[in-house]
Amino acid sequence: MSDSGQKQREEIKRGVLDDITPGNEERREIQIVFEELEERATDALDELGFGCVELVGSTARDTWLSGDRDIDVFLLLPTDLDREEFQEVGLDVGREVLPDSTVAYAEHPYVRGSMEGYDVDLVPCYDLDSTEELKSAVDRTPFHRDYVKERGLDGDQVRLLKAFLQGGGLYGSELKTRGFSGYLCELLVLEYGGFEEVVREAATWGRQTFIDPGEKRGGSGDETVDDRFDSGFVVVDPVDEDRNVAAVVSREKYAEFIDRCRRWLENPGKEFFYEPHRRSMTEEEYLSTLDRRGSRVVSIVFESPDIVEDQLYPQLRSTASSFRNKLEDLGFSVLRTTVMSEDRSVILLEFDVFELSSVERHQGPPVYVGKHSVSFRSKYKELDVVGPYIDDDRYVVEIERAFTTPAEFLEGEAVFDLGLGKHVGEAMRDGYSILVDEACTSLLPEFGGSFTEHFDPELH
Amino acid sequence: MSDSGQKQREEIKRGVLDDITPGNEERREIQIVFEELEERATDALDELGFGCVELVGSTARDTWLSGDRDIDVFLLLPTDLDREEFQEVGLDVGREVLPDSTVAYAEHPYVRGSMEGYDVDLVPCYDLDSTEELKSAVDRTPFHRDYVKERGLDGDQVRLLKAFLQGGGLYGSELKTRGFSGYLCELLVLEYGGFEEVVREAATWGRQTFIDPGEKRGGSGDETVDDRFDSGFVVVDPVDEDRNVAAVVSREKYAEFIDRCRRWLENPGKEFFYEPHRRSMTEEEYLSTLDRRGSRVVSIVFESPDIVEDQLYPQLRSTASSFRNKLEDLGFSVLRTTVMSEDRSVILLEFDVFELSSVERHQGPPVYVGKHSVSFRSKYKELDVVGPYIDDDRYVVEIERAFTTPAEFLEGEAVFDLGLGKHVGEAMRDGYSILVDEACTSLLPEFGGSFTEHFDPELH
Repeated sequence: MSDSGQKQREEIKRGVLDDITPGNEERREIQIVFEELEERATDALDELGFGCVELVGSTARDTWLSGDRDIDVFLLLPTDLDREEFQEVGLDVGREVLPDSTVAYAEHPYVRGSMEGYDVDLVPCYDLDSTEELKSAVDRTPFHRDYVKERGLDGDQVRLLKAFLQGGGLYGSELKTRGFSGYLCELLVLEYGGFEEVVREAATWGRQTFIDPGEKRGGSGDETVDDRFDSGFVVVDPVDEDRNVAAVVSREKYAEFIDRCRRWLENPGKEFFYEPHRRSMTEEEYLSTLDRRGSRVVSIVFESPDIVEDQLYPQLRSTASSFRNKLEDLGFSVLRTTVMSEDRSVILLEFDVFELSSVERHQGPPVYVGKHSVSFRSKYKELDVVGPYIDDDRYVVEIERAFTTPAEFLEGEAVFDLGLGKHVGEAMRDGYSILVDEACTSLLPEFGGSFTEHFDPELH
Repeated sequence: MSDSGQKQREEIKRGVLDDITPGNEERREIQIVFEELEERATDALDELGFGCVELVGSTARDTWLSGDRDIDVFLLLPTDLDREEFQEVGLDVGREVLPDSTVAYAEHPYVRGSMEGYDVDLVPCYDLDSTEELKSAVDRTPFHRDYVKERGLDGDQVRLLKAFLQGGGLYGSELKTRGFSGYLCELLVLEYGGFEEVVREAATWGRQTFIDPGEKRGGSGDETVDDRFDSGFVVVDPVDEDRNVAAVVSREKYAEFIDRCRRWLENPGKEFFYEPHRRSMTEEEYLSTLDRRGSRVVSIVFESPDIVEDQLYPQLRSTASSFRNKLEDLGFSVLRTTVMSEDRSVILLEFDVFELSSVERHQGPPVYVGKHSVSFRSKYKELDVVGPYIDDDRYVVEIERAFTTPAEFLEGEAVFDLGLGKHVGEAMRDGYSILVDEACTSLLPEFGGSFTEHFDPELH
């Protein structure tokens, strides 16, 4: 890291911070919205005679990126409410605060609406003294905010890290992305002191990284990670030592982050902090790409099941990998898969081996093993096969291959014998279509962006 | 083995023996031819003042199959002749006996001609007292004859075994066949007592079989075979303990023999003793076979080099296996290969995977290995490739595949970098053609029989 590189990086970051740090006007605006929300919620809770209101999330910690329009407000409710009352109160108060809202579902239902152009989540949680008595999945959130605020986090450093992750598609803990959450960014900045320190540290990370901010121990390398956690990348939640804040980060996103940090240190640039513009692929581009790659593309298309993305994407991925494994067992070879979802969902499989002969070799026992050889010969003698003949010292028959193209398999009932995601399986039972090569152009109006991503997976 | 099976087999063999045992007329005829040959050769040797004549081979041992038209006559020459004189005398005498003969080459040259419709080989060898002083490769032959004659071999039992092997394409020690020699058949019958005993024994043979007729020890099973011999099937020559009479038998022919013996015992039939009639494949049959199998066929065709079959076939096979290995490394998949030779030679490769995408995955190092990852990224960043991107935790690029069909590879200069047989390589350098699928029909007039064999490899 030369001094000139250091200087160059500082300059770039200054420019980026100008773009991503919320200005006074934005702060004032958000403050007004929050005060209005707080007043309404307090009024509603006052009528009930219990509970209080707290602003949480990045707006509360001053770590949000300028332009973000998300406000998270928590309703802290007394622990003597049972689960049913708790949910009922949460929704009632929520609806009173935001009359035009809808109900959304995470571990428990909450109210989602908007005010003055901001997306507002009104989430009930239990008002606890410590995290040892967690009753709902979101009860930790106020403690996270307290932990971070007490330690005087530098919001700009977190903003740089978030933008840096966003530029590489690594930001966000939803299961579609499987990237870094905002809280994880905050903990990393607290742990190492700033954006640059995080990046330098991460550039040296090995296969396994273990960070325990509460204990001030941990490290990175190939040593065995604490066996509480089934993951190579562990950041222990300082407010709950059984929780890995990085649990959702996939191996791939973890590796991409390390690579991204290295590339920034080698060759810094402003573009690291901005998402690349991904155009929707045109029909012409798609056809010429297919021609250039000489590969074959099969899309399985069906109506998206009515579940949240956090449920849908894992199912789409596991379905895609069931298809891939089965098709490779059958002798085909998959180059890459991509899953996409809008109103319809698509599992795209790209093949380097797509066509197989109608016959396939089936190897029998060695000739010497008398018992097996008799049963093998008698089994195949009557069937319409080539053989049995002897190759080297084994019996071989050539039997008719069940499927000579992946489409033949995917069109058949046998797909439902595979481990498909529950809702994806149900959606496919309601009907699905198989589009091959040119026919996939009909998907471009809806999925052109994902097609671009599939065919141009380069690191940005 | 039920009594009725036994009875049935005996009946079949009686019928077969009627066909394959030479009758009195045939014996007389052959006796006359031999006497004429002996007289001419003795006259020629008398002029030189040394040497004598011996009838060897199956005619000498009364183990030939009726209709065989081969007579082997050995000229036993004194051991004080040096190699040059020995060869000269052999050819001179040979030419005097058979003026219209040609010179053939094994370890040393000899004369091949015909008389009264018989194919006659006139082979010089040294006249030795024992096999401890062998000077040429054929010097053992008179000792083989003596060994067999002294033990009162039953010619009919050998004839049955030979016909039984012939019916399965397992008879003949030339390198095109890699099967059982006549002498091997004789030793097996001597060892076990008769055709039926050989067959019952062989039906139980394991991966390794060791028979030592001289020592009266040996056995069969998976125990380690005597380490003098690099083969799983060893029959020690009783006249030369360092020689494995079964050395030329391939693993495949050995296994096919075991299988054939079992099938004969399970379900005997006259057809075991007669070669199946293999028609030449017609154009129509070939095209419909190709269509049914859905496979792709590539034939590499060139002028046969001017060498004997015992040299040519091993080279053709090793060339075919070089092609196969290389093409499978490149991502194609070979179902089966067959080599053929007439005036032209053909290496036929049949594929179940013939077409590949123009791009292929090339996997780089894991992201964590800093040094390798920098060099991998810098190597591929400038090239016209897709990527580098990260899959799981490794860098991957998609590079242009060198060959998307086997024909593309086979047409290029790179074939000559493979281990081709010496003379086959030279012949290919003089020119070769690549015929794909339908184009192979042009080979049927010359190679139709071999095509039938390739596409119908069943055990008969």
